[in-house]
Amino acid sequence: MDRNDFSTPINLKNIEVTDCFWENKMKVVRTEVIPYQWRALNDQVEGAALSYCMHNFKAAGKMNQEKAKLGAAFQEPVYTFRGFEALPDDPKHPDENKFYGFVFQDSDFYKWIEAVAYSLISNPDSELEKMADEAIEIVCAAQQDDGYLDTYYILNGKDKIFSNLRDHHELYCMGHLLEGAVAYYEATGKDRLLKAACRFADYAAEYFGEEEGKCKGYPGHEIAEMALVRLYEATREEKYLRLGRYFVDERGKRPYYFDGEHPQDIKGKKEDLRYEYHQAHIPVREQTEAVGHAVRAVYLYSGMADVARLTQDETLWLACEKLWDNMETKKLYITGGIGGTHIGEAFSFNYDLPNDTAYAETCASIGLIFWARRMLEIRSDSRYANVMELALYNTVLAGMALDGKSFFYVNPLEVFPKACKKDERKLHIKSVRQKWFGCACCPPNLARIISSVGSYAFTENRDTLFVHVYMGCRITKCIDQEEIEVSIVSGFPYDGNVQIDVSAGNVPFTLAFRIPDWCDDYEISGPDAAKAEEKDGYLYLTKIWGENETITLYFPMQVQILQADPRVREDIGKVAVRRGPVTYCLEEADNGKNLHMLTVDCEAEPETEECFIEGERVVSILIPGYREVIPEGKKLYTKAEKIRNMPVKLRFVPYYTWGNRGENEMTVWVRRERA
Amino acid sequence: MDRNDFSTPINLKNIEVTDCFWENKMKVVRTEVIPYQWRALNDQVEGAALSYCMHNFKAAGKMNQEKAKLGAAFQEPVYTFRGFEALPDDPKHPDENKFYGFVFQDSDFYKWIEAVAYSLISNPDSELEKMADEAIEIVCAAQQDDGYLDTYYILNGKDKIFSNLRDHHELYCMGHLLEGAVAYYEATGKDRLLKAACRFADYAAEYFGEEEGKCKGYPGHEIAEMALVRLYEATREEKYLRLGRYFVDERGKRPYYFDGEHPQDIKGKKEDLRYEYHQAHIPVREQTEAVGHAVRAVYLYSGMADVARLTQDETLWLACEKLWDNMETKKLYITGGIGGTHIGEAFSFNYDLPNDTAYAETCASIGLIFWARRMLEIRSDSRYANVMELALYNTVLAGMALDGKSFFYVNPLEVFPKACKKDERKLHIKSVRQKWFGCACCPPNLARIISSVGSYAFTENRDTLFVHVYMGCRITKCIDQEEIEVSIVSGFPYDGNVQIDVSAGNVPFTLAFRIPDWCDDYEISGPDAAKAEEKDGYLYLTKIWGENETITLYFPMQVQILQADPRVREDIGKVAVRRGPVTYCLEEADNGKNLHMLTVDCEAEPETEECFIEGERVVSILIPGYREVIPEGKKLYTKAEKIRNMPVKLRFVPYYTWGNRGENEMTVWVRRERA
Repeated sequence: MDRNDFSTPINLKNIEVTDCFWENKMKVVRTEVIPYQWRALNDQVEGAALSYCMHNFKAAGKMNQEKAKLGAAFQEPVYTFRGFEALPDDPKHPDENKFYGFVFQDSDFYKWIEAVAYSLISNPDSELEKMADEAIEIVCAAQQDDGYLDTYYILNGKDKIFSNLRDHHELYCMGHLLEGAVAYYEATGKDRLLKAACRFADYAAEYFGEEEGKCKGYPGHEIAEMALVRLYEATREEKYLRLGRYFVDERGKRPYYFDGEHPQDIKGKKEDLRYEYHQAHIPVREQTEAVGHAVRAVYLYSGMADVARLTQDETLWLACEKLWDNMETKKLYITGGIGGTHIGEAFSFNYDLPNDTAYAETCASIGLIFWARRMLEIRSDSRYANVMELALYNTVLAGMALDGKSFFYVNPLEVFPKACKKDERKLHIKSVRQKWFGCACCPPNLARIISSVGSYAFTENRDTLFVHVYMGCRITKCIDQEEIEVSIVSGFPYDGNVQIDVSAGNVPFTLAFRIPDWCDDYEISGPDAAKAEEKDGYLYLTKIWGENETITLYFPMQVQILQADPRVREDIGKVAVRRGPVTYCLEEADNGKNLHMLTVDCEAEPETEECFIEGERVVSILIPGYREVIPEGKKLYTKAEKIRNMPVKLRFVPYYTWGNRGENEMTVWVRRERA
Repeated sequence: MDRNDFSTPINLKNIEVTDCFWENKMKVVRTEVIPYQWRALNDQVEGAALSYCMHNFKAAGKMNQEKAKLGAAFQEPVYTFRGFEALPDDPKHPDENKFYGFVFQDSDFYKWIEAVAYSLISNPDSELEKMADEAIEIVCAAQQDDGYLDTYYILNGKDKIFSNLRDHHELYCMGHLLEGAVAYYEATGKDRLLKAACRFADYAAEYFGEEEGKCKGYPGHEIAEMALVRLYEATREEKYLRLGRYFVDERGKRPYYFDGEHPQDIKGKKEDLRYEYHQAHIPVREQTEAVGHAVRAVYLYSGMADVARLTQDETLWLACEKLWDNMETKKLYITGGIGGTHIGEAFSFNYDLPNDTAYAETCASIGLIFWARRMLEIRSDSRYANVMELALYNTVLAGMALDGKSFFYVNPLEVFPKACKKDERKLHIKSVRQKWFGCACCPPNLARIISSVGSYAFTENRDTLFVHVYMGCRITKCIDQEEIEVSIVSGFPYDGNVQIDVSAGNVPFTLAFRIPDWCDDYEISGPDAAKAEEKDGYLYLTKIWGENETITLYFPMQVQILQADPRVREDIGKVAVRRGPVTYCLEEADNGKNLHMLTVDCEAEPETEECFIEGERVVSILIPGYREVIPEGKKLYTKAEKIRNMPVKLRFVPYYTWGNRGENEMTVWVRRERA
């Protein structure tokens, strides 16, 4: 780990995304997702599961008023366990003094305000900002005098705060508050929510820590680690970094903190497996395999990378690298999805990547992008950016319908709708995207990553601008007092041409371009007199840049037919199709029913064909293949004759566009014709 | 349906099994399973789950004594729900007045006594018979004055008998009592248990029925239907047949009887699906698809066939044929297993036959044999006998270790031990056979079918002897006063030669030999002057038979490589190997790890090789194939090059012998090499 390799994300204020592909996605988020989610948070969406998110903040604020009125006479509610989710007897008339929804319901607002913040940077919108400011007032009104802010315990009884760290998400909600508050502050300069975030973080920093007498707990659902680092970087307040590092360091130590909270759960599972779900089974520095709940895992690994970078912690960095290597080489779907099993929404064992029962949660791939970006901040190695690109263009985009009106939480690589309804092992697989859920983690997470995509595509350090993901944009880079304009035009993800125009007043600096893993060779022309060097999958161009210098890059997007390591049982004898950053799939809409009866001819020459799916311009891929013919007669088992095949032309479409043309079969992996 | 086609099973007293293959299996049952189970029923097996079966009968008998002593002063226990299984606080010291175990625990004894009965016929054993007589006394002592006999309610409170027919198995236990009692009577001539059975059946016949004022319920778990028919055929008491027919006729009528018992369960499932698990979703005559809990299903279908035969009910017979056709052509594993999903231990939808998550319970294949035999009694069509043979030599035999000391309840067609431990969707799959379970349905079921196998292999009517399954035996057939000796010597299941010697004093009659579906052509020599005719898969030989006439049949057992209907998604691109009645599999023990990386060359010439597996002489099959080579480098996804294969010789062993050489991978379906 070398400080000189470090980089930081480009400030969103210095990026203007001009790319029609991404502009369109950001527009959908801005015009559909953010307004829809605001209505959802306020329980104004007909037919959607009720959120009670804003209801809870209002109820807590109301209680604060009463407390102020009554003073000592005020009766604090005493906690009696209400389970993981609370619902009113009559959903239409919730008690305005009670908490409803999941224990982590507060976080839905924090994710929403974070997305709003990013959106306000790229698209100032005074009306939206006014709405956000008013909402922030409601949230801040719920905060306790001591700084504590979690409506579940405020309304149900503060006598039990932090008593169930394993399951009750207080520190998870705090983490999202910090993320949202910093984002809104950076976007608007308004610190109302930031101050509330600091007060809650101060409260937590007093409560938890290695110091004598402080609670030795840590979050059951990670995110506070990276959020505290972000708050530290926004405020430079050391104690936030210290608390974040403490949460990382304490995790998994024996005796297990969670055992003390839940003595009744100790028996049963072997000790070393007991907290795999929470990545708390062993200290993080000893972890070498990505395990447990996939979202929690990548949130933790993101925090580990942050802490490693800021504390120059080599052993922590080494753990991050080992975990990454395990994830990338044994547990990553070809769609950039992670989490092979719905049981625990978790990573399965090495090479266990089932397609039709995959979990591959949208949020997990978003978290994977968080992690990748943080690895890149430490070391610009394209292996991280390759996975970032894969997750971004495939599982993440698949999580949202092209019109932004419905969402996938689970992203299987093979769907047979009948089985999803009749086979209870596949009930978690939805064959069509759903409206807002009670547990609405994925839609707001999608909103915040898409509206801040520029801060993942590019990082910088003093004299270098790193291009990790190619997207059209205008970037302003400052070196000392000089402002340099870098504008990029790209045809990604369907066309490999990239043009970069640089305007600088004879300033020496470096542009570092990622060379994608999916292209064997690339072309570059211009600029003159640049020192060019390839390192760790990046092309470094160094020179003194003048006005209007142009570089053109070409990354040929050949259709690639890929196979999985044969240890992946579910993919044996099958292939998948990828072109550039886009992973493809077969849909019934283009190829008829019974996709499993199709085989693809790997020797044949693929053709590409532009087409439109629900208004989205995509490049589809045509490859000759065969369809097995259903024999006459009804015997279930017959002598294995030569297989009767009918030649067909398979049409592959981008995975992220599947399920936008009604319920139908889909598969990413297709049997290869060996004849 | 034509009376003249009807046949009845050969009385076990007229069959002596001389076949070394089956004699060995029966010996294992006699010397291992039956004594082991007796100890299990009495909780004398170290380390095995406690049964409490005999404990419960003794406790009920003790209560009867007290009742007799106290008379009117006796306090009947009042029922308070105790759930589906009751366990003592201290397993070593159960309360001798209490009921323990599952609600259906009584049935374990009834299955055991049935197996004992069959065993006593083929192998008289005064000591075993004495033990059985004493056990019967204990059971009869538990019977109530009114004839009721179910220890769960006797001990927990008779005020609630028959109040939960859907779940509480009273009529299931009664059914097994009837089966066991008739078997023991027929074996020994002793009617002590038969009288108890009749008294309980009389009680039920008073309680249930179409008549005004009687309860309109029917069993939640079927078997009483066929058991009542059996009791009727043993006693010729019309009311037993009437009750059996009533249970068949009433099933599935609206409003649902079970709804009345369980009003709280009505909401949720669609009405027409609500009782699929119990085959009570629609009246049985309207049922065309085999659905729900597989054991319950085939027990019901067996009872339907019995009732159809005895009441000449064409519509009921038609329903049986439709259900059979659906099961055989869309829901039957190539191992003779049924039940594609462990959820509800049930049939899945058409063509959904997963290999690695199959349920395919041993008991379900045993029930399938019950059903097939009953279909054969109505119509000697080889389609029924073909499936009977398939189930018998494969899934049923696989249910028991070769040494008779451990058992499979679930019979998957593909096992990867690591996945069975780590993938919670496969936790029902055991990769090694288990000792006695608390829910011990399969071992005693295995004991009773194996010890009575002769009554499935052969049926007869006045002038015809049907040979459905070939096994060495001596059969005495009576026509009028004449006794005819038919002795069969066969090399089945590994050799297709069969020799039949007939000694008859010039009596005209017919021998009907099943022509197995797995042989395309067969050879016959002798006897002279016989009229030979083929019909419905049987070869009928009619003549006046003299002394010492010999027929030799030869059914060539070529190795067959089979494919499934391509609509079976799990088997697409794969083949399975069968030879004669035996389905084969690959085991890690012979072929190394990662069986999924193997392919079989369907064009190659298979060889057979005799070998021994744990002392069992079997014919193994060697077929050239390939093993995919794990590439260098650790990239999870790479360009689909020509697959790197290593030629190997695959050794297939009989499926029923798998898992006898330690825990290892196994698969029935193997990918076919298309190159």
